[in-house]
Amino acid sequence: MMFDEKEPFIPGHEFIGKVTQVGSAVTKVTVGDHVGVGCYVDSCNSCDDCKEGEVQFCDGKVISILAAKTGKRVGGNPNTKTQGGYSVSHVVNETFAFKIPEGMDLTQVAPILCGGITMYDPLKHWGCLDGKKMTVGIVGIGGLGTMGLKLAKAMGHDVVAISTTDSKEAMAKEKGADFFVASKDPESIKACAGKCNLILNTISSNHDLNVYLPLLARDGVLCQLGLAMSPHPVMQMSLMRGRKSIAGSGVGSLPNHQEVIDFCAKHKIGSDV
Amino acid sequence: MMFDEKEPFIPGHEFIGKVTQVGSAVTKVTVGDHVGVGCYVDSCNSCDDCKEGEVQFCDGKVISILAAKTGKRVGGNPNTKTQGGYSVSHVVNETFAFKIPEGMDLTQVAPILCGGITMYDPLKHWGCLDGKKMTVGIVGIGGLGTMGLKLAKAMGHDVVAISTTDSKEAMAKEKGADFFVASKDPESIKACAGKCNLILNTISSNHDLNVYLPLLARDGVLCQLGLAMSPHPVMQMSLMRGRKSIAGSGVGSLPNHQEVIDFCAKHKIGSDV
Repeated sequence: MMFDEKEPFIPGHEFIGKVTQVGSAVTKVTVGDHVGVGCYVDSCNSCDDCKEGEVQFCDGKVISILAAKTGKRVGGNPNTKTQGGYSVSHVVNETFAFKIPEGMDLTQVAPILCGGITMYDPLKHWGCLDGKKMTVGIVGIGGLGTMGLKLAKAMGHDVVAISTTDSKEAMAKEKGADFFVASKDPESIKACAGKCNLILNTISSNHDLNVYLPLLARDGVLCQLGLAMSPHPVMQMSLMRGRKSIAGSGVGSLPNHQEVIDFCAKHKIGSDV
Repeated sequence: MMFDEKEPFIPGHEFIGKVTQVGSAVTKVTVGDHVGVGCYVDSCNSCDDCKEGEVQFCDGKVISILAAKTGKRVGGNPNTKTQGGYSVSHVVNETFAFKIPEGMDLTQVAPILCGGITMYDPLKHWGCLDGKKMTVGIVGIGGLGTMGLKLAKAMGHDVVAISTTDSKEAMAKEKGADFFVASKDPESIKACAGKCNLILNTISSNHDLNVYLPLLARDGVLCQLGLAMSPHPVMQMSLMRGRKSIAGSGVGSLPNHQEVIDFCAKHKIGSDV
């Protein structure tokens, strides 16, 4: 659905570039600025979600940078599609471009606009910037997971890295984890049972989320972030005991895109590339 | 497990009585007061949950009024069990007795200590007393559901009653519902799609909770309260689109027991008996 098989298409989202031209109404950036673009390049701009900057939830109208039909946009050409981030140049509405502060290592910045925002948004939403020390679990120590470890640690929390086996323990601790849980080992789960106020689960393949519920503290939230497509069998008693929640989140709001870049600049956080 | 089949047992929880005697260390009540007792009569009193009044989550140590072995309690007699609320008289720790304000119709008060607290606690937990107007859905218009309609309405919210068919519409609106959804009718679901910030689901038999997710607004929470024992097949994409949550809750904290009684006294809310 995303790609027209008759035409070659060079994908790529989350890219960084230097502004070479601006339209007459542009106020946010000037020629010479470094900017980044994430997954989206437009949305309906009129629904409640868009008005509040939560364009990722704009129902059916948010326009991906990856070969979305531009005709969905008001005034868009029905015969063209968005061209992906590997283009030599790109025209983008300033609303969807975010300023990169000077001094950041540009090679490490681009993934912040996907892996970074995808972790930052739920961390913020579930209270990690509210000033109270929490214990945050991160499931899956890959591109998203390592960003999650770094962000949660920089926010001042105790951080638990959760992976199937202990093969990633040393790496996870280097990235910011205080504790490590090997989820295939019941003893390892038991050692951390009831500790996590929030768990961000980055696993994108099918998996059993019930493995992680015992790690949640009372009122804890397990937030699913990957694209796992099989249904999870959830026993509601597992949620009722401890008033726990299973939630989902995807990417993040426009204001949080800029926030996570600025947070990373302040705390000298870069993506592993 | 709860009942010793060799002995007859008269059950009953959530009861009201008049205090006839108090121990020398009792400070909360005096002889002549009306008090109510809910589902619990003791707990470990030392875990974090107990210290914060959340005895319903005291792991394995909370003592039900319904034939629980009293030996679980420190100093408890291992050969006796709790006797249920239909007893002629009852000895109870004042921590687990709640004062009934003068002027309340005692015939309508007792169920507040089960159905009332079970609805009040999650309403409060998910922000219904924080001063922002919300839309609250109540699934299942029975004992818990009617209390939920009354409480949510008295808290100032728009209230949606949700039942399988429209046979309970008139009754639900009489109890406080502003809107009614017949969940077996896709058009009825559609008419209220995306409206509810919080849905309290009281259904205690097995059911498909996915029916209710489309009713949730962005960041909405579906809170399961019944004792449904079959797993729910949950697609995490349904949660990721709109950053929704599925949660669970059971009964409520000790402070909230007194709060819901006082709230009902103030707003002249009684149970339907």
